[in-house]
Amino acid sequence: MIGGVASPPRGDVVLSIDAMSGDRGVADVLRGMGKSLEADPRLRYILHGDAEVLDRALRAGSPLAARTEIRHAESVIGMEEKPSRALRRAQGSSMWSALQAVKSGESPAAISAGNTGALMALSMLALRKAPGVSRPAIAVLWPSVNPAGYNVLLDAGADIRADAADLVKYALMGASYARNALDVARPRIGLLNVGTEEHKGRPELREAAEMMVTAAPLGEFDYIGFVEGNDMASGRVDVIVTDGFTGNIALKTGEGTALMIRDQLRQAFAYSLFSRAGALFALGSLRRLGARIDPRNVNGGVFLGLNGLVIKSHGGADATGFAAAIRLAGNLAERGFTRKLAARMALGAPSDAEESAPEGATT
Amino acid sequence: MIGGVASPPRGDVVLSIDAMSGDRGVADVLRGMGKSLEADPRLRYILHGDAEVLDRALRAGSPLAARTEIRHAESVIGMEEKPSRALRRAQGSSMWSALQAVKSGESPAAISAGNTGALMALSMLALRKAPGVSRPAIAVLWPSVNPAGYNVLLDAGADIRADAADLVKYALMGASYARNALDVARPRIGLLNVGTEEHKGRPELREAAEMMVTAAPLGEFDYIGFVEGNDMASGRVDVIVTDGFTGNIALKTGEGTALMIRDQLRQAFAYSLFSRAGALFALGSLRRLGARIDPRNVNGGVFLGLNGLVIKSHGGADATGFAAAIRLAGNLAERGFTRKLAARMALGAPSDAEESAPEGATT
Repeated sequence: MIGGVASPPRGDVVLSIDAMSGDRGVADVLRGMGKSLEADPRLRYILHGDAEVLDRALRAGSPLAARTEIRHAESVIGMEEKPSRALRRAQGSSMWSALQAVKSGESPAAISAGNTGALMALSMLALRKAPGVSRPAIAVLWPSVNPAGYNVLLDAGADIRADAADLVKYALMGASYARNALDVARPRIGLLNVGTEEHKGRPELREAAEMMVTAAPLGEFDYIGFVEGNDMASGRVDVIVTDGFTGNIALKTGEGTALMIRDQLRQAFAYSLFSRAGALFALGSLRRLGARIDPRNVNGGVFLGLNGLVIKSHGGADATGFAAAIRLAGNLAERGFTRKLAARMALGAPSDAEESAPEGATT
Repeated sequence: MIGGVASPPRGDVVLSIDAMSGDRGVADVLRGMGKSLEADPRLRYILHGDAEVLDRALRAGSPLAARTEIRHAESVIGMEEKPSRALRRAQGSSMWSALQAVKSGESPAAISAGNTGALMALSMLALRKAPGVSRPAIAVLWPSVNPAGYNVLLDAGADIRADAADLVKYALMGASYARNALDVARPRIGLLNVGTEEHKGRPELREAAEMMVTAAPLGEFDYIGFVEGNDMASGRVDVIVTDGFTGNIALKTGEGTALMIRDQLRQAFAYSLFSRAGALFALGSLRRLGARIDPRNVNGGVFLGLNGLVIKSHGGADATGFAAAIRLAGNLAERGFTRKLAARMALGAPSDAEESAPEGATT
């Protein structure tokens, strides 16, 4: 559980998994499922894809096979496919099938490593926007020095534009997500801008800043003003709100920087016999650091604002990454996150912190 | 010299330095000047600020004092001052005085650690836009795996908007800057976007992409298409072109990520006796890594598109950072960069790689 507290055991949680759409292939998906089952034995899976392939890959009699129902899908949406083409080819694809299991209520959450644009297009078609939501957004977790260990960034790329009203709704959705994914009771929200002074930035940001003052009590969050790129990891904010163009670029810049430094660190330690010895001594420390900046451990962009939960796993995620996305889906599902968020967006009032019944498929 | 080759000795290079506007104070500016003079004894300085303060701080008889002319300025532009107010208060300030020495031709370049918005506003008023330039841009160097060690990013925050034509002009200016600052003969230029597919991103980016095809031979660069946030440090591009809003956020996100990892690394090594021993063994490696990801070593946003060179040093830069900004100014001045860039923007044709005469104040 990411940043969460232990919950009392409940019934099974059924997750709907697209086995086919990632870059990595079925084997990593199954290994990720296996890891997630070890971590939480109450999970069950509906697995969508080529039944023959999946049947062969899933060893009969294994603990995972006992908890998995295979559902055949003829086709696969490609990683480079345009959303418009993906929509035309949706029927019969593993991605579409995974979403249908959420629509039908069999599962509260779908997980796919497929291409983001196609997954968002199909999700909107299959699940529709929740009442009160004009633009769904993708929320991601980013390592920070906050006690929860992460900040929330949204929109990470669902839509390349957002006006002032959209940004305020992102703040409401982000606050709800931070409460449920990170156990932050009263999230501090900041608007991403090029300066923290009130007169700076684009007009829609200044307008959103004014609207935020009235939205904050409604959404039970604290609006802390403008934040900058270097606040991504800072401890003064919990949720960073921005349009999907800027958010996507900030996210990928941060990831790229972390990966570059990791590579440099490896090279630095391979430099001499002394530094190799140093690396050996410091192995534990380096592992701790590696786990902290490893994007696989925060794998999973969550689609907010739909009638059902959809989690996008990194296209290139390995088994560890896929397992992280599954655990995130399980935790959010168990907390009834989709229903809480929908209630907040539709009515603006009831506290999602007070609700407690689990959501969706308990068997 | 950042990424450059050694040049034959020439006459003195006179640089105009705003001593007062940074967060750090006069002592760090003078230490930075001292370091830059040690690295390049041909530098001379016109130092702008409170003459009494500067006179006291600059030890009489020191090598630095022998190469420095103090020019009195009554006032200081504050770090939080709005550009509009800074413009009204420009007269008599150290920032304005530093720019006047460039306008008059006494110095080819001004360096200031003052606030970016005010420095850009005063620079445009004092130096005016070069012919053919609609929006000046701020170019920064970003550590990369390229042979030169850095990529160029622009605009890093001169202007929060840019249309397709602006982006193409940024490409022309960025190509010229990469040739002169990094010795990349034929820079590879990419447009920052949320995906590399041609159909993705904002309309102005798709339009700029089409215009880039005809601009590339004129600007003697290779247009490589769209790049993403994780290409900031990559070896497949030399110059990343974007609007100043996105560029500023990408830059600060990258910096924030690097600083967070540096702090985490320190904590990791302080964790146990073993890891402390490891850090000791690996000290050399860690120093090499630190130098690589230390923003002070690439300190200096260069204002492109004005009739004269202006370099903005980080507000919080210490002596090492200020010295880096001074060396960058000296190198670009010596190469006659401003004149080469102006010729390219005005005429579009002559190769700035072929010119060789030094520019401005040789005494």
